[in-house]
Amino acid sequence: MKPCVVLQSDFGISTGLPASMTAVVSKVDPELRIYDMCHEVRMYDIRQGGRILASTCPYFADGTVFVSVVDPGVGTTRRSCVAKLDNGSYVVTPDNGTLTYLYDHVVAVREIDETVNRLPGSGNHHTFHGRDVYAYTAARLASGIIDYAGVGPEYPVTDIIRFSTPTAEIVDGCACGEITSASDHFGNVGISVPNEMIHAIGINLGDMARLEIIKDGNVIYDKEMMFHRSFGWVKVGELIMNECSNDYVEISVNQGSFVAQELPEVEGVFDLSAYKVRISKAGK
Amino acid sequence: MKPCVVLQSDFGISTGLPASMTAVVSKVDPELRIYDMCHEVRMYDIRQGGRILASTCPYFADGTVFVSVVDPGVGTTRRSCVAKLDNGSYVVTPDNGTLTYLYDHVVAVREIDETVNRLPGSGNHHTFHGRDVYAYTAARLASGIIDYAGVGPEYPVTDIIRFSTPTAEIVDGCACGEITSASDHFGNVGISVPNEMIHAIGINLGDMARLEIIKDGNVIYDKEMMFHRSFGWVKVGELIMNECSNDYVEISVNQGSFVAQELPEVEGVFDLSAYKVRISKAGK
Amino acid sequence: MKPCVVLQSDFGISTGLPASMTAVVSKVDPELRIYDMCHEVRMYDIRQGGRILASTCPYFADGTVFVSVVDPGVGTTRRSCVAKLDNGSYVVTPDNGTLTYLYDHVVAVREIDETVNRLPGSGNHHTFHGRDVYAYTAARLASGIIDYAGVGPEYPVTDIIRFSTPTAEIVDGCACGEITSASDHFGNVGISVPNEMIHAIGINLGDMARLEIIKDGNVIYDKEMMFHRSFGWVKVGELIMNECSNDYVEISVNQGSFVAQELPEVEGVFDLSAYKVRISKAGK
Repeated sequence: MKPCVVLQSDFGISTGLPASMTAVVSKVDPELRIYDMCHEVRMYDIRQGGRILASTCPYFADGTVFVSVVDPGVGTTRRSCVAKLDNGSYVVTPDNGTLTYLYDHVVAVREIDETVNRLPGSGNHHTFHGRDVYAYTAARLASGIIDYAGVGPEYPVTDIIRFSTPTAEIVDGCACGEITSASDHFGNVGISVPNEMIHAIGINLGDMARLEIIKDGNVIYDKEMMFHRSFGWVKVGELIMNECSNDYVEISVNQGSFVAQELPEVEGVFDLSAYKVRISKAGK
Repeated sequence: MKPCVVLQSDFGISTGLPASMTAVVSKVDPELRIYDMCHEVRMYDIRQGGRILASTCPYFADGTVFVSVVDPGVGTTRRSCVAKLDNGSYVVTPDNGTLTYLYDHVVAVREIDETVNRLPGSGNHHTFHGRDVYAYTAARLASGIIDYAGVGPEYPVTDIIRFSTPTAEIVDGCACGEITSASDHFGNVGISVPNEMIHAIGINLGDMARLEIIKDGNVIYDKEMMFHRSFGWVKVGELIMNECSNDYVEISVNQGSFVAQELPEVEGVFDLSAYKVRISKAGK
Repeated sequence: MKPCVVLQSDFGISTGLPASMTAVVSKVDPELRIYDMCHEVRMYDIRQGGRILASTCPYFADGTVFVSVVDPGVGTTRRSCVAKLDNGSYVVTPDNGTLTYLYDHVVAVREIDETVNRLPGSGNHHTFHGRDVYAYTAARLASGIIDYAGVGPEYPVTDIIRFSTPTAEIVDGCACGEITSASDHFGNVGISVPNEMIHAIGINLGDMARLEIIKDGNVIYDKEMMFHRSFGWVKVGELIMNECSNDYVEISVNQGSFVAQELPEVEGVFDLSAYKVRISKAGK
């Protein structure tokens, strides 16, 4: 069975743009299974697109062809590429930072040669590479019409454009990292501290933890909350620090929005690296 | 041909969470057809999820495997189950009220044994059973990898958690019931009075009807409007009581929102059973 | 391989209504591939539904069966039809203006005979023809259960209901047309001036152009901006006139919303034909 093609973009579900990508793929090869990842990536937020891609793609079968298009530079000089991952999957995307969070899994990258990999008749269109270049190339690759070499010339993986990637470390018995996401449907804040690091500093499920958020060297948030394995372990409306299923700690309000209630200033911020977090045992 | 798998959740279309469920299903068995029901169920609103499920699933083929995840208790002690319906379809869901409106069609229910029905490697994840338990179990059931007994131990259907179910009756020549939904895309209010009960009290298509809404014993709304078979029989902006295609009466504003214009207090209310309705012939 | 069925509506993604159409199609014939076009067409905006349909359907394979349901007259006396296009594709829709922008491609049209083309048991439902009539008819046509004649009686193509269609012309060296869309996800304004008409009046890529918007004979907007092939050629937040990939000129703010920032009065307007545009070389 042929691999599936999975489509992501910031085109929005109130337009026909995602369907135009589906159209191109299904027309190239009607046997390809086509799934949508997310078409409501926040407009122009390449980081968010990259994070959704990185957290979702491990659950698809090896060999899947992903298309991810958050492309503020469409029609200008940014490079279009197909990255090959270590499980045989591919990501077709503008090389503009999308691959940041998958970078460690990229084994090769090729620039799309638009002289051969472009929807016939689309040469005078420069605002919809998602349809004319990315979906078309993905479909032909998934279908076997072209092989990976047929994408275009290879370039060094180290040339892939990346954002800085958040880290975490234990300092003076505290788990220190930064906010990585705040645009979640449920209003949660994701941070770069792995779940196991909380255990490593001696905080167990059900214990109270202290969360400090530091910006420009100033503590802008300092509260205690329970640490547990999911948000439902506290009463509705209460704060909780929980072990998210992406393996990193999440800060939530049970059945509420942490962002709206506790930290509205991060709403809409693309680059959250200025928001550092420090987690310690409560009462210390 | 294998049955299809149909996915519903409150995970939102601006995340990769619905796609993660799709990923798991397609990876278990790429031959399964996968459809989305609705991933914008209002967050945590189990009743709404249950109503959408109950009104949609009769239109899918017998034997379909549904996944419905509105799961405020994820990672806590609530039970995960697979209900078998009288047409051979299955519903994979937390047993938290989702099955209320399908209860009369449930012929058996089994608790999911997570020691066998859990995505390999996901045992330390407790916030995303939609992906790790429900989608995975649904796919294996649809694919034939497990049979129904393979889900886990059976328990009595009468143990299924249910909300109170709204009823309707004719009292003193009036059709009496309650509001069942007010979260509709179009701003309509659904009520528990069947279409035919309006005819039974002598109101015919095109007649004027009186709608009273009673809360805590007080009439909070009292207006007359036309009763007809669809909302387009009155002028744009006018009130209408129409026969909804789910067989129950709907209160609408033609090309407007009844909820926003006439009854904004019900916006966002999960349990609407406090809002009683009484319908009678106009001018009486 | 059988043709695919592509579904569009204004039913919204927070309901089970689009899935009910999917259900009906998949139940008629599980072999049919089913894709969604857009289910967040603005409520009751037939023009927007028609525009999305017309700009998306050329990218699907010949012979595709489209369903497009924006149907404020559901359950009243408007006609339901299936139009046949010049590439062998079909459009199943209420005949209420949806076909305006595809009209030149329609080679035949038939009224749906609901005595045969209606979901069995649905005869007392009059608010959901999308499910009971359109999806059902589309599936049977795509599956080969009925042929085109089986839809119902043919009627003259010239009887199809149409809105006025916007035009454009060069007057005194200026490209003159009207606004065609302002409801785009990205906040762009679409106009009826073809990309090549800008070149024809001597404005080249990278040149500055003057945009006037005229309503009721008064110039309500008059600014200069760069003309280029995509929005990324100006700084973030700057105005740009770009060549949209639907072959018509689009007015944008790079990574911003032209509608919100520059012309909020058009937000929510269905019929934009009162907004005329005139484009000329800047500084003249």
